[in-house]
Amino acid sequence: MSALTNRQWRLAARPVGEPKRSDFEFTEAPVPAPAEGQVLLEVQYISLDPAMRGWMNEGRSYIAPVALGEVMRAGAIGRVLESKHPRFAPGDYASGALGVQHYAVVDGKDLAAVDPKLAPLPVHLSTLGMPGFTAYFGLLDIGRPQPGQTVVVSAAAGAVGAVVGQIAKIKGCRAIGIAGGADKCRYVVEELGFDAAIDYKRDDVKQALKAHCPQGIDVYFDNVGGDILEAALARLARSARVVICGAISQYNATAPIKGPSNYLSLLVNRASMTGFVVFDYAPRYAEAAREMAAWMAQGRLKSREHIVAGLENFPQALTMLFTGANFGKLVLQVGKG
Amino acid sequence: MSALTNRQWRLAARPVGEPKRSDFEFTEAPVPAPAEGQVLLEVQYISLDPAMRGWMNEGRSYIAPVALGEVMRAGAIGRVLESKHPRFAPGDYASGALGVQHYAVVDGKDLAAVDPKLAPLPVHLSTLGMPGFTAYFGLLDIGRPQPGQTVVVSAAAGAVGAVVGQIAKIKGCRAIGIAGGADKCRYVVEELGFDAAIDYKRDDVKQALKAHCPQGIDVYFDNVGGDILEAALARLARSARVVICGAISQYNATAPIKGPSNYLSLLVNRASMTGFVVFDYAPRYAEAAREMAAWMAQGRLKSREHIVAGLENFPQALTMLFTGANFGKLVLQVGKG
Repeated sequence: MSALTNRQWRLAARPVGEPKRSDFEFTEAPVPAPAEGQVLLEVQYISLDPAMRGWMNEGRSYIAPVALGEVMRAGAIGRVLESKHPRFAPGDYASGALGVQHYAVVDGKDLAAVDPKLAPLPVHLSTLGMPGFTAYFGLLDIGRPQPGQTVVVSAAAGAVGAVVGQIAKIKGCRAIGIAGGADKCRYVVEELGFDAAIDYKRDDVKQALKAHCPQGIDVYFDNVGGDILEAALARLARSARVVICGAISQYNATAPIKGPSNYLSLLVNRASMTGFVVFDYAPRYAEAAREMAAWMAQGRLKSREHIVAGLENFPQALTMLFTGANFGKLVLQVGKG
Repeated sequence: MSALTNRQWRLAARPVGEPKRSDFEFTEAPVPAPAEGQVLLEVQYISLDPAMRGWMNEGRSYIAPVALGEVMRAGAIGRVLESKHPRFAPGDYASGALGVQHYAVVDGKDLAAVDPKLAPLPVHLSTLGMPGFTAYFGLLDIGRPQPGQTVVVSAAAGAVGAVVGQIAKIKGCRAIGIAGGADKCRYVVEELGFDAAIDYKRDDVKQALKAHCPQGIDVYFDNVGGDILEAALARLARSARVVICGAISQYNATAPIKGPSNYLSLLVNRASMTGFVVFDYAPRYAEAAREMAAWMAQGRLKSREHIVAGLENFPQALTMLFTGANFGKLVLQVGKG
């Protein structure tokens, strides 16, 4: 094992605006042997997520920033090559914060077992992974939709949004998705079963929400912030819940972030706007995975991944998140498949 | 009774920015006789409130706007002169939406009895009236402070803020007030018993909140919006509750309202921001009045009113709300006392 050479993407500079190639360094280093309690894995699939942009910034957040020179943090799935932890054996699959690299040596206690028979590996980074858990707990715990209510979700064709809308339908709600482009809108309605989709690149979102939500929005699940958040706030129903999951439109902002100028809609409508961080729900991940896997087996919950091959393509693949070029959960396949 | 002549302030124009004299018309008209079920009152004290600014705007809100030419809406206390409603008799005092006028004829069912022995009449428009109820339900129902937590309130020397901080203390919390000027700050700490006060006209509010809230803010009760809301959002504790009660800094805005640019602090801190409208709590007003009157009798809850005499001074008195010139609940006394 000592002959292995790692390839690693390290954070070289704190990005200003959208991350670019020169913010990262592609380096090589020998792979250390795992110590007692540790596991050596060959990374198979790496999850690319909007949250990674926040980890590149300095300053207090819900998690420490990635230090300059450090391997870029990422959730990933690996195959165990060598294990000094009793729960894992060579050939097992496991997920965890393995980083953007070819091999990872991590503590076994920080890994979660992955059952490749339950679903293809990339799905464990998507609907049965962090994005799925984010949708599940954000919608059900914070949004608390009731049957017959109207749920609106932005980035509806994305990994989180797609699950939000499908669970809303399973719970007897009307689901309206906001997505960019005719293909994504068609996918959301025809494949995922949303009641309607709004194309923010073509439609007047405010007008379209008025047309599709005649009784107002009971739950708005916000992945994007900016103008779309404002359009949704303008259409809240009495006692609406706004779930703040992210604000991808603002993550690369170099000017001050734009706050929702009509936040007083919360007052008029006796509504709430609540943030959450999925990691707080870790003790309940297994419960969510069980229920969502059952829905998938019944064909009521569909998952779509957008796979880019080649570890060396990390910086270019990452930018797809911010231009909306991916269609489904963006996953980087380490090998060329 | 038919000889009575009413003096009335009517809305003559929709104000642009701060309301000015020419937005109102001071008119005279004969007072009609009360019909069956109605009560004729001589208005004694009129409550002047920031919310009145919102009622002057056109467009959907939690309550219909005042029409042009209509008597300006206001809560007030009157003495009954003539009653065709079984619950009221001449000489009784009652409160309701009597309007900015000398005499009012209203349905008895829309009036609440006022007991002048419980507290002086203006207190029934202040701590034992709408501002007190707003503080009581906003803090206890939406803010849900726990003993030992830190409660911050803006406009702390105002009718709502003063009650918020005092109830926070009664509930075993630390109370930090934000107010404008040394007099108000001294009053808040020395008279009302807040733990500290921040003078937004002199202090760097963000730095001062850092100093006074080392563990962060658990409940922020916002009466003002704007920069002070942003400063509070920047200092939230985990699971904080932001209570949106109003935004006086923004009510006269002619430019688009400024939304809180750091609203993503809600996400990082798993916090919520919730609006409410006190009218929803009408069925529980009596409960709140009973508890607050008891606190007042025990000397644990103090009330301060700023009384301007003379109905003819309405427009000038109203502007005091927006310049912060009043000190305590602003009340217009109809006669000259």
